[in-house]
Formats: sequence, structure tokens, C-alpha cells
Amino acid sequence: MKVAVDAMGGDQAPQVVVEGAVLAAREGHAVVLVGREPEVRGFLAGYPGAEQLPIEVVHAAEVVGMDEHPATAVRQKKDSSIVAGVRLLKDGGADAFYSAGNSGAVMAAALFVLGRQEGVHRPAIGGVIPLLEGRVFMVDIGANADCEAQNLLQFGHLGAAYMRHMFGIARPRVGLVNIGEEETKGNALVQATYPLLRESGLNFVGNVEGKDVTRGAADVVVTDGFTGNVMLKLAEGMQELMLGLVRGAIMSKPHYKLAGAVLRPGLREAGRRLDYTEHGGAPLVGVRGAVFIGHGRSNAKAIASGVRAAAHAARIGLVQKIQGDLLAASLSA
Amino acid sequence: MKVAVDAMGGDQAPQVVVEGAVLAAREGHAVVLVGREPEVRGFLAGYPGAEQLPIEVVHAAEVVGMDEHPATAVRQKKDSSIVAGVRLLKDGGADAFYSAGNSGAVMAAALFVLGRQEGVHRPAIGGVIPLLEGRVFMVDIGANADCEAQNLLQFGHLGAAYMRHMFGIARPRVGLVNIGEEETKGNALVQATYPLLRESGLNFVGNVEGKDVTRGAADVVVTDGFTGNVMLKLAEGMQELMLGLVRGAIMSKPHYKLAGAVLRPGLREAGRRLDYTEHGGAPLVGVRGAVFIGHGRSNAKAIASGVRAAAHAARIGLVQKIQGDLLAASLSA
Repeated sequence: MKVAVDAMGGDQAPQVVVEGAVLAAREGHAVVLVGREPEVRGFLAGYPGAEQLPIEVVHAAEVVGMDEHPATAVRQKKDSSIVAGVRLLKDGGADAFYSAGNSGAVMAAALFVLGRQEGVHRPAIGGVIPLLEGRVFMVDIGANADCEAQNLLQFGHLGAAYMRHMFGIARPRVGLVNIGEEETKGNALVQATYPLLRESGLNFVGNVEGKDVTRGAADVVVTDGFTGNVMLKLAEGMQELMLGLVRGAIMSKPHYKLAGAVLRPGLREAGRRLDYTEHGGAPLVGVRGAVFIGHGRSNAKAIASGVRAAAHAARIGLVQKIQGDLLAASLSA
Repeated sequence: MKVAVDAMGGDQAPQVVVEGAVLAAREGHAVVLVGREPEVRGFLAGYPGAEQLPIEVVHAAEVVGMDEHPATAVRQKKDSSIVAGVRLLKDGGADAFYSAGNSGAVMAAALFVLGRQEGVHRPAIGGVIPLLEGRVFMVDIGANADCEAQNLLQFGHLGAAYMRHMFGIARPRVGLVNIGEEETKGNALVQATYPLLRESGLNFVGNVEGKDVTRGAADVVVTDGFTGNVMLKLAEGMQELMLGLVRGAIMSKPHYKLAGAVLRPGLREAGRRLDYTEHGGAPLVGVRGAVFIGHGRSNAKAIASGVRAAAHAARIGLVQKIQGDLLAASLSA
């Protein structure tokens, strides 16, 4: 399995991306770095023995900026690392694609070049969120700011299929993000979605509120891309806030500092549970290809973990398996 | 100043509400407990010296359950503690009203009995969220699941007025909850709201994402009641999750346990910063009266803190001041 990696995507690209690719390649993953070849080769040369690693470089002259308008950028920059990388996947030169770049542009390129899976109206971005025990898959986390009930129903199917095949959960529990437990709660969108999910054949566990999500009440939580993105970033913000509080407490008195020094390795290990760099990026579900999106702030470890997830998806034939599930749920026309 | 308190509101009412009223009364706040008089007096009798405290009891025979349909309950249960309490405020028998009961019913009773402030289309519930430094006021946190841009603009005005008068912030920074910084980001609702807030005369600081909210990028963050409620509950869930992680780390090794025991008072003090029981309930803004809503799980301390906030609002003439600000912003027709 070969993973095409957008060498120019992310706040510290290409340096950090190359580093991440080297990490992944050292584990045995085959990587194709797509981007400005001289720059990429320059960074690659800094790693002794890099020429022995399963890393190829494919040149792409253009770069899509983090703030560029996705559709416009993808239309105009045909030779960008994003478009070239997705095209490589389409043409069989790679089995998956990973980018920590402009996520809207990755989405647009995947739509234009790969197309949607049969029966899918709106592909979505899913996010794996680590919990105290296990994890939850939130979908959509930002691809579709305005949604209809039918879209949310499909997110439920896509999310369930993802968790089934990537994490081996036979019948993933699917929850609908809402502001109360009763079917009649919420805005017009979720009220219209509830009966669709109930009749979907999915293992629908009803509405879930913020606290249910963090307590692991569902394996998949369905929401529109606006709410999902706000949730994801608030969760990050709350982690930061809580860590700041703990740090502040430890620094407030000399004997706390001492106790804090003893505890530090334990706290660090606990923090790792929530560390996004360990969780392999966010899959784009509903397109005809294994595409993963990383955080713009991804470090090398996060890039490597994204490559690993993408390689795993390719290896198990994730996209075909999801298509099979969709067909079985007769989502396809 | 006299605060009418819904004695029957909250998961452990009336016992915990009576206890909270006693705490507040001992600080000198005058309280009118509204609810089933025999029960309320029964609990009150348990406090030595209670008859010396500034506590009255007003009988109301009915109780609105936490899960009852708000409008129906308010229409049918005219003698409920919620309706009777709001009526007491309306008729001048109290200067503010506080309830930890069914928040939808409190909202409905306030709308029916007190009515909206001049120029306000949709009153909202605001939530004070404690941060590492200071606090942020989020509005709406659940009264209006479906909103229009005009509503969000008014939430901005109401929130700014609240922070100005309750917390003395001269020109509160107002942010719009969104999923990116640029004006063109987000769903149709926030895209329509952005230019309204920019031209509003408010100190509009633009879009804020989840992390900006927790970092204190704004004093007031404006959002629809669906997103706001999801955020509030997710923040609670994340607190719980993070505390669970820290606790788990401390318990994982004997020497961590020891260090944890030393640190405990410091961590507890840090946790108090985020403790909703210290933050006085959520005001209902945009109605003709000072109404505060408490968490259903409020303990006595939280009830007392709500009474304190309600008394403060009454003392400073909050409702009149907000009306003045709205008029100055020519929100009123």
C-alpha cells in the first residue's frame, strides 16, 4: 500500500511533513511525497539513510494556501500538491491520500477528481475523538455547514461503516447531537433527522448531549458540519483551559511544584490519551477513495499517524467496504 | 430587594432550594420561597433560627415537572411555583425571580406574564462561563433552537448590556461563534449575521472559534440556542473528562497517589474556578423583569449564588438599564 502525502500541506510544511513521512516510512509504510521536488528533496536529504526508505517524490509546482477559497484554488491550481496527490490516488499511483493542508480544498479536489460514492449526496469529514475509554467518531466536523436531514442520515451510515471497518465495532451505536433527550427537542434540522435515523436500520441510540458524547454514550455522533466543527474546537479549547488550570495549581505553591514534578510523567501519559497527534487524522467519508485530512498544526508524529491510518484504510479496502454497507442499507438509488 | 425563588424547581427540590434560600438569607438577602407551603415550611423548620431570617413563603399548589412541555405546562398550571413566582415579580411582590426548574417553562412564563422588552423579538438565556482569566457570556444557550440573523444581532446587544451593567465592562467585546475567522465562513445564519454585527455599533471583534472562546477572545459570544446549548454541555462534559483523566493518572501508581494527596487542595481550588455553583445562574435577557435560571442539578450553594445574582440585578435596575441600552442602539421601533 502506498500513501500519497501532500508535502506542502500544514503550517510547517514541507519540513514537518517530510519528517512525518520519514517516521512512517521507517515503520515500513510506502509514501509518495507530492510537492515542490527540490524543497522536498532538500529536507529529505537531511535524514541519513533516507534513500533506503520507501519514499518517492512526485513534483507538483503549486501550493494551495490555508486561507484560499477551496473550490477556486482547486480549479485554478491544477498542479498543486493537493490536486496532484488526489489525481495520483485516482490514477492508481497511490492507494490513499493524506493532507494537513487546506481541508476545504482537499474536499473539493476529492469531489472533482474522485467523485462521490454511489448514493451519497454530501461527503463529510469525520473526526475520531479520544475518550477516557475508547473513542467516538463525530461526523460531520466541517465539510457541510448547512445540512438537511437526509444528509445527517447519510452521515450516520457513513460513520457507522467507518467505525465498523476501521475499528471492528460490529454494530456501532449511533447518536444524534441534540440539546435534550426527547425526540421533540432541538432545532428543525435534528427534529427532522430523528425519525429518519430511528427507521434507518442503524443501531440508533437517540439524542446525545455534549456530556453524553464525552461519556461515550455512542460510537458515532451525527451532526451538521457547523455544530461539529464548533464542538471539535471547543473540546480542544477546553483541554487547553483545563491543562492551564492544573498547571496554574501546580505552580501556585512550592510544595505543589514538588508534587507536580512527581506527577508529571503520569499527567503526561494521561494527556496523551487526548492527543490528536496519536489519532490518525480525519477521514473524508463518502468519496471514491481513501482520503485523510490532518490538523494544520500537525507535527511529524501526527503526520506519521495520519499516514498509518490512511495505509490501514487502503489495506482493508475501506472505501469498497463502506460502499457495500451503503448498498446493503439501500442508500444507493 | 426581594428575590422570589421557585421552591419546587430543581432535581432535589424543595429540600435543596430551601437550604440555598437559608444560605442566601443568612447573607442578608430577602427571599420569598414560592411553592407547596407545608413542604417548604417543613424543611425550613429544620434550620435553627430560620424564623429570624428574611424568608417568606408564598403557597403555590402545582409543580411543573422537568420534562413537561413548557408552554402547555405554563398554560395549564396557573398555580405552579413557576407561574406564581413570575406573577409575584410582575405584581411587585418581588424584585427578581430565580428558578432551577424547567427552564423552558420559566421562559414561557416570563414571556406570557412579563412580556418582552421593547424592540426585542426573542428573549434569550445567557450563560456566564468562567475562564482561566475572567469569564465569557454566551448567548443564547438554549431558549431559541432556530434563529434568524436579526435574533443573533439582538443577542449581541442584550449580552453586551448584561456584561456592561452586571460586570462593569464598559465596551464588552462581542464575538460571533463560527468555524473560521473570515467573514465568509460558516453556515447561512452566521454569514447573514456577521455584517449586522459589524454595523451594529457594538464592539464587534469578529468570528470566534471554540478555542478563542475558552481563551477569552470576547466578553460576549453570540450564537443560536442550539449551538450554544451543545457548547455549554460539551464544556461540562470536557471538564468531567479531564478531571477523570487527572484522577486516573493520580490513582495509577502509589507515588502518584502520594503526590496527588499533596496537590489535592490546589487542584480543588483550581476546579472551583470552573464551578458553575459559584456563578449565579443564567439570566433570561430581553424580558421585562429580572429572571434567572439555575441548573437542574443545582446544590444549595448554587441556589444561593443564583439568589445573589438576581438580587444584584434587581438592585442595579438591570432590566431598565438594558432597556436604556437597547433604546440607545435604536433597537426599539
